[in-house]
Amino acid sequence: MAESPDNNQRPQVLIIGCGFGGLEAARALRQADVDVTLVDKSNHHLFQPLLYQVATAGLSAPAIAAPVRFLFRNQPNVTSLLGEVVEIDAPTRTARLKDGTPLRYDHLVVAAGATHSYFGRDEWAVHAPGLKTLDDAFEIRRRILLAFEAAERESDPVRQAAWLTFVVIGAGPTGVEMAGTMAEIAKHTLPGEFRRIDPSSARILLLEGGPRVLQAMPDTLSASAQRQLESLGVEVRTGARVVAIDAEGLEVAQPDGSNARIASKCVVWAAGVAASPLGRQLAASAGAETDRAGRVVVQPDLSLPGHPEISVIGDLAAAQSHVPGREPRPVPGVSPGAKQMGRAAAANIVRRLRGEATVPFRYADYGNLATIGRNSAVVDLTSPMGPIRFSGFLAWLFWLFAHIYFLIGFRNRAVVLIDWASAYWSSQRYARVVTDIQEPGKADV
Amino acid sequence: MAESPDNNQRPQVLIIGCGFGGLEAARALRQADVDVTLVDKSNHHLFQPLLYQVATAGLSAPAIAAPVRFLFRNQPNVTSLLGEVVEIDAPTRTARLKDGTPLRYDHLVVAAGATHSYFGRDEWAVHAPGLKTLDDAFEIRRRILLAFEAAERESDPVRQAAWLTFVVIGAGPTGVEMAGTMAEIAKHTLPGEFRRIDPSSARILLLEGGPRVLQAMPDTLSASAQRQLESLGVEVRTGARVVAIDAEGLEVAQPDGSNARIASKCVVWAAGVAASPLGRQLAASAGAETDRAGRVVVQPDLSLPGHPEISVIGDLAAAQSHVPGREPRPVPGVSPGAKQMGRAAAANIVRRLRGEATVPFRYADYGNLATIGRNSAVVDLTSPMGPIRFSGFLAWLFWLFAHIYFLIGFRNRAVVLIDWASAYWSSQRYARVVTDIQEPGKADV
Repeated sequence: MAESPDNNQRPQVLIIGCGFGGLEAARALRQADVDVTLVDKSNHHLFQPLLYQVATAGLSAPAIAAPVRFLFRNQPNVTSLLGEVVEIDAPTRTARLKDGTPLRYDHLVVAAGATHSYFGRDEWAVHAPGLKTLDDAFEIRRRILLAFEAAERESDPVRQAAWLTFVVIGAGPTGVEMAGTMAEIAKHTLPGEFRRIDPSSARILLLEGGPRVLQAMPDTLSASAQRQLESLGVEVRTGARVVAIDAEGLEVAQPDGSNARIASKCVVWAAGVAASPLGRQLAASAGAETDRAGRVVVQPDLSLPGHPEISVIGDLAAAQSHVPGREPRPVPGVSPGAKQMGRAAAANIVRRLRGEATVPFRYADYGNLATIGRNSAVVDLTSPMGPIRFSGFLAWLFWLFAHIYFLIGFRNRAVVLIDWASAYWSSQRYARVVTDIQEPGKADV
Repeated sequence: MAESPDNNQRPQVLIIGCGFGGLEAARALRQADVDVTLVDKSNHHLFQPLLYQVATAGLSAPAIAAPVRFLFRNQPNVTSLLGEVVEIDAPTRTARLKDGTPLRYDHLVVAAGATHSYFGRDEWAVHAPGLKTLDDAFEIRRRILLAFEAAERESDPVRQAAWLTFVVIGAGPTGVEMAGTMAEIAKHTLPGEFRRIDPSSARILLLEGGPRVLQAMPDTLSASAQRQLESLGVEVRTGARVVAIDAEGLEVAQPDGSNARIASKCVVWAAGVAASPLGRQLAASAGAETDRAGRVVVQPDLSLPGHPEISVIGDLAAAQSHVPGREPRPVPGVSPGAKQMGRAAAANIVRRLRGEATVPFRYADYGNLATIGRNSAVVDLTSPMGPIRFSGFLAWLFWLFAHIYFLIGFRNRAVVLIDWASAYWSSQRYARVVTDIQEPGKADV
């Protein structure tokens, strides 16, 4: 209890952010003799791996979002607060909410996550929204569905073609999922519902600046993913560097130095991720470093140099996995990494309370999987006998059950299963609701 | 085919609005040799009787909203358009969308519905939102959930009590449902999730200007509904006339001429309904009358005087039910009324195309039912042997199955059943997602 500022009080643990990392850290402190305050700027934990399904009208928002309070209703040492932390003062051990409320802590876990990065071209954001929050997903869903509506009303064939051209920038897991599912909507869901256009004539382009899709995957699985995308009807262009985006489309640099224009009214950004701005502010206050992506460089035990009471985890941390006898390796920015860091940070807090030494973080890599669309996915599992790789329908089934298994809460799982089962058999998309109808054709659509 | 402006073309039927009335009219024209254009300002048909469940986080939006295009995918003579009709020019048989697009018609069915009325006090709208659209429901859900969040963060007991006081104005079916369900949330869903407040201490007030709740019901069922509300924890005040609403609460006129103030940060308006403004515009153009609520006064066959090609149906119509040998009686503003008018208007269009006389509208009244909350409802059925009236758990089961039966589309029904079954057994509310978190405490929360 040496950590406590007041001997009448239990140690105060503050966790900022209720993504995978923050959620696991709070859960792992269930038995600890501490008071946990979990603060997040939204009221729900979001199951981000399925967010693209909300953006493509396959799932409703509540199916992948559980209220934070509900998740901790049976853990009395957790107090959940709705609020946005805008500043951390490391010397006084105080975080401050946007409205000025101070939150004192003895131990701090910062799990504020990441946001989109437009590589300095923030003016692109309005024309090419990214996908991180439920509001982002609603906005993308709105743009996709309203583009088909506008095309149905448009008589000029050139403008109609622009409404029916959908571009996804960035072929990481999110970009691949988005492009594959958009093709599914155009080719399988909407045909038969329009009288003046043929939705299956829509073009779906997936642009990637690097040499291949899913670059975190082995070459063979990247090639398989590209084949599967193409058979779903997606045009994949690797080595395609986007140099301009506006309300009418975008421009791609050509090998000869010129720029080729693509007319499109619906562009989705899945290319860049940047750490939450809270990372730089924290680093400045605590005398820590950040890397080029704005992530906070942490010690082997996930704490900050000179501030053992502060841990940074998840997408906000530039962390390494430490296996005795091997070179440290960077932890990938995936949900299992965030969850494991959350548990490790909580365990180190418990060790410090007991006066024990903290232990370095070790990332257990179970592999990597990505879905592409109906019946299509790639799986790369790590096993003691070497990697297990497969793709296609079996990989898709594996992906499906893994995601449903990890979805939080029984109700969500059941509803997601039913939505998917019916979507699968009927090719229908359950959640095609747009509430904020602005007149299609306006620049902001 | 005498009605057609062009002999090469089939008669053009334009239906404005895809609520219960417009939807049924379009369906009833399935076999008719006409082209139907169905235009609505949203992309979905909304099952409005369950909208209060979205507002109280019990159901997700897609569970009660089906895309209009999807509903008519197998009816080739229907073209669905997304757009808002702002003007009808009866002499030239042309409707105009907000963006200027003209829509010519030979037959017009106007089913544009109703909106809230604040009885000339439109400045109340920002403090006391009503419940007509999905966006309304999201806004009310946001206010209810954020009020509990703000109370958890508030240290001043007076302000905390204002956050925990919820007021519903108007004790018609919507007001009764809202108040009963808000009590359910406070008393059954949220307890155990907060550390600083006791959600079950929240006050839910239901204010009604008239002498009793559910005035469309017989006296005995009104009394039963009030008892059921009170046993759920709702404070019911009849004869309570609201004279002021602001960001901090409202004022109710007292018998002695003074005004009593109620401090509340969450007020819901369920008191007044007014016809869509399109009604007055249409009436002016076609030389028809409107009543005090702005509804268009129609002929016995639902058409307008001197304009047999225009029918007005649903909440926009001041219509009468015509039973031979009896006095005409007003059609109530309920969904069965709108559906029956939709079918009747379609049948009269078919009769006119055949050169037959149109027939007066006759409303088949099957009764009336209203739910109150968990296990509570009142039912008043019309039968040849006289009225059948019951209340309580049996009425609630009857209400539940009637509503699930009438929900459109298999998927929706299944999802709604699962959501409700799990909500019932766990007292949980599935859809407690708030995306647009503004700092609680601001005037607009």
